[in-house]
Amino acid sequence: MSKRAFNFCAGPAALPEAVLQRAQAEMLDWNGKGLSVMEMSHRSDDYVAIAEKAEQDLRDLLSIPSNYKVLFLQGGASQQFAEIPLNLLPENGTADYIETGIWSKKAIEEARRYGNINVAASAKPYDYLNIPGQNEWNLTPGAAYLHYASNETIGGLQFDWVPQTGDVPLVVDMSSDILSRPTDVSQFGMIYAGAQKNIGPSGLVVVIVREDLLGHARSSCPTMLDYKVAADNGSMYNTPATYSWYLSGLVFEWLKEQGGVAAMEQRNKAKKDRLYGFIDNSDFYTNPIATNARSWMNVPFRLADERLDKAFLLGADARGLLNLKGHRSVGGMRASIYNALGLDAVEALVAYMAEFEKEHA
Amino acid sequence: MSKRAFNFCAGPAALPEAVLQRAQAEMLDWNGKGLSVMEMSHRSDDYVAIAEKAEQDLRDLLSIPSNYKVLFLQGGASQQFAEIPLNLLPENGTADYIETGIWSKKAIEEARRYGNINVAASAKPYDYLNIPGQNEWNLTPGAAYLHYASNETIGGLQFDWVPQTGDVPLVVDMSSDILSRPTDVSQFGMIYAGAQKNIGPSGLVVVIVREDLLGHARSSCPTMLDYKVAADNGSMYNTPATYSWYLSGLVFEWLKEQGGVAAMEQRNKAKKDRLYGFIDNSDFYTNPIATNARSWMNVPFRLADERLDKAFLLGADARGLLNLKGHRSVGGMRASIYNALGLDAVEALVAYMAEFEKEHA
Repeated sequence: MSKRAFNFCAGPAALPEAVLQRAQAEMLDWNGKGLSVMEMSHRSDDYVAIAEKAEQDLRDLLSIPSNYKVLFLQGGASQQFAEIPLNLLPENGTADYIETGIWSKKAIEEARRYGNINVAASAKPYDYLNIPGQNEWNLTPGAAYLHYASNETIGGLQFDWVPQTGDVPLVVDMSSDILSRPTDVSQFGMIYAGAQKNIGPSGLVVVIVREDLLGHARSSCPTMLDYKVAADNGSMYNTPATYSWYLSGLVFEWLKEQGGVAAMEQRNKAKKDRLYGFIDNSDFYTNPIATNARSWMNVPFRLADERLDKAFLLGADARGLLNLKGHRSVGGMRASIYNALGLDAVEALVAYMAEFEKEHA
Repeated sequence: MSKRAFNFCAGPAALPEAVLQRAQAEMLDWNGKGLSVMEMSHRSDDYVAIAEKAEQDLRDLLSIPSNYKVLFLQGGASQQFAEIPLNLLPENGTADYIETGIWSKKAIEEARRYGNINVAASAKPYDYLNIPGQNEWNLTPGAAYLHYASNETIGGLQFDWVPQTGDVPLVVDMSSDILSRPTDVSQFGMIYAGAQKNIGPSGLVVVIVREDLLGHARSSCPTMLDYKVAADNGSMYNTPATYSWYLSGLVFEWLKEQGGVAAMEQRNKAKKDRLYGFIDNSDFYTNPIATNARSWMNVPFRLADERLDKAFLLGADARGLLNLKGHRSVGGMRASIYNALGLDAVEALVAYMAEFEKEHA
């Protein structure tokens, strides 16, 4: 077997090696039961115990209050872009959205198909290099909710603060930074996250929603997209994505073993400080995002001469530093350094970047 | 490691052992690339090749004509119950549905939320022991489509014929018998199947749809539920359920190695003949379904005295014959014998049934 690579993919992303090893060991025979988790009835005692433990571990990790439901759904964050207005936006209501990049923009476009959407603030005037402060926001009194993306995976722009909206429920797309540091769930009406960055494999989306927001879905909302139906049925109105749910549970267990989200915060801080510090001390690499809006999870950077991009990527691949190519819409490079990657991955990347600079600067 | 059990679960169901072994071997390091398939970007060359091979193998297995799209979606068959009318039923149109059990009834209930639904025939007058012939159906001229379930997993009722509807597109829920025998795809407007019976793990639903049926979604249809959006983006409008797609591809490869759906038909015929034959020759076990409507995939049966049910199930478990309990809505027993189970599983079951009968009759 070849060595495991350092995988800087933005998602689906690297998973902890210990999690994959356990999944591998249990693949044909879970706990001596003679079958794989993916062959279990979702209603069997064994599987229900797996599912409930996963939920409880996530509740423990984020200290989720008891008046919040945790849902394990399908369709990714993109399906949530429709589910949110279908569940939370009355036909004649208005929802506020903050636009800080490609993902929050997609959420806005989909929500507009279902009602009045007010873009209360946009990072566009800042060329997506900074996030406008809340004093610049144009909020709607009595809005159904305020939606934002806490981390923009493509642009590398992240909130380091939580908006304050009083009684207006805060809805956040936390796909790419959930579990990367402590979160006070009680500040939010709803948190959602596609699993394929910090949780598990793709094909699963986790929704954490305050109970009073359930039960308001439009009559046209497909049953499978109604949060209350999912909540009332323990996310098993129909067969859920059982294996992805199980793998997410293994990740939650691993996170607890590592010391939880407080430990992740320290580790992630060390990683991003090392990488941004190196970039800022270099005349060859640049990241133009305002310091306090820089993403801890996705670090886009450029080389001094983009004609060197290809050579940089080839050399990286040869060293087992994979998937550093930036998103096609922005170009350049991007290193995604989610929970599963340790400081060793960042050190290996920085060492290569220094070496490449020395050769080509 | 303990022995692999014979798993008669209705779904999520048994998978071929060879498929699980390969997934296990490739778990941490696919093809020497140093990462798991579930850690790959869905847009990477490696993953796209995996996805395309899976689609091609499915096309080969079912000889899918080139004017059909194959979609790998999420949300299971239950989400399709809404997606079908949202995509195929004009606001003022009528769709015909055939009701042969719990799943087709659920499809009808969800579709009724979106328009005029005519239940053209029901198995209810036959106590769900037989399927009314097409001469008894009350079809709507110019219906948007006719929907039926080719196999009812819970009742154990299966069509052994394909309805003839002329220009009205035939839409079939083939969740529990797809790939179990040859299918002439050209007779259908659309075939859909939740993966967790004959395809792969749960959390994936395969849709095979004729191209002329694309592009008619209602304006209220969520983008992620629009078949045309999925088709135009190769089922990658957002991140698909990559690992489930890969596993399904391994199942398709395995099916081809076994000789394809013609070989499966022979094997499944031998299995169901053995099991129904044994039941019919016994005074202790019964299955009341009309002979030509009996499911090849799900064989419900009852013991002469239901007070023996518990002992039967305990004895079965002890012998590694798992998940024989009937659905809670019908009671009794049910043996699901999908493609992944061989005749050896049925022989083991029949041997146990004979032994149990001898002890308790």
